[in-house]
Amino acid sequence: MNQTRLKQQLTFINEVEELKTVYRRNMVVGRERFENSAEHSWHIALMAIVLSEYANDDHRDVDLLKVIKMLLIHDLVEIDAGDSWLYDEAANATKAEREEESAQRIFGLLPGDQAQEFHQLWQEFEARQSSEAKMAASFDALQPMMNFLLTGDAELDDISVGEQTVREKKQHIREGSTVLWDVGQDIIAQCVDAGLYGRES
Amino acid sequence: MNQTRLKQQLTFINEVEELKTVYRRNMVVGRERFENSAEHSWHIALMAIVLSEYANDDHRDVDLLKVIKMLLIHDLVEIDAGDSWLYDEAANATKAEREEESAQRIFGLLPGDQAQEFHQLWQEFEARQSSEAKMAASFDALQPMMNFLLTGDAELDDISVGEQTVREKKQHIREGSTVLWDVGQDIIAQCVDAGLYGRES
Repeated sequence: MNQTRLKQQLTFINEVEELKTVYRRNMVVGRERFENSAEHSWHIALMAIVLSEYANDDHRDVDLLKVIKMLLIHDLVEIDAGDSWLYDEAANATKAEREEESAQRIFGLLPGDQAQEFHQLWQEFEARQSSEAKMAASFDALQPMMNFLLTGDAELDDISVGEQTVREKKQHIREGSTVLWDVGQDIIAQCVDAGLYGRES
Repeated sequence: MNQTRLKQQLTFINEVEELKTVYRRNMVVGRERFENSAEHSWHIALMAIVLSEYANDDHRDVDLLKVIKMLLIHDLVEIDAGDSWLYDEAANATKAEREEESAQRIFGLLPGDQAQEFHQLWQEFEARQSSEAKMAASFDALQPMMNFLLTGDAELDDISVGEQTVREKKQHIREGSTVLWDVGQDIIAQCVDAGLYGRES
């Protein structure tokens, strides 16, 4: 038993409690509070299990365990860097640098081999080049769309988001799954019909 | 494309949003609110990734993906049945029946093959006989102990829980991992020192 290693792992497990208090811009059902990044991560990992059969043909050999690992850890960098809303251009201009610093601190709590594995998984997810990263990004992008249609406009946003912007920011879903991108486009159409999008500024 | 199948899967993904509003008896860091079962499920799935190397020798060939699947779905039955606190004997007397009914409805939203897979995974988790179920149960039992030591007494409980009861209810952790049971016993000792347990009634 390597007690130092175990202690590092337990410190990491305690630290990630903080992700439960990183709040996003969408709400949970019943609209009692904003969704946090921990429960969001759970939801998309479950989506990966249920929907991975819709991977495009060139991702048929996707490693589901790797996709799930990516999804469970992909938002941990927000513990220090905060959640950068997809449509907030100012926040996204500095996102990469803030998140890399956070990744070094948070993954760095783990023993060296696991720190390296998690950091690489996160970088692979962000780069969105591998089959696993493209699939993971599809679930990460689709879940907030499904949630938004269910829970409706947060009515708190200083940033007006229109149909065209949503379509541009979300169209990478088709790189993982054209079937899921069809689902996404159908949701966009329903949001338009329900008057849920703002006017583009 | 089987549109009926896809629609069933999306209905399930929307339905499980509800788990984010099933609250447990322990609090998140900062004590701003109670933890919910969705973020708890995320946390223990992440623990499985970080700590599965501590599986007892007879679980060395444990299927990590199966453990994670179990952990991500194990609390979905609470959407209808509510969270039955481990130390609430009255709630636990009727738990099995309420949860089985809930399992039939919630997993039954999925296409037949996935409904069967999820229902079986949940039953295997509950039975705690397989290596995967014993490991999954270890993480599910240890996380609230770590959280309790971090966040402290909820001070709202009508049920007084003492050291001996915690030890009895949690000792199955050793069936998955004697190393993690040592961690659990150390946490119990720290909780005693900090005066966090109530007097047994």
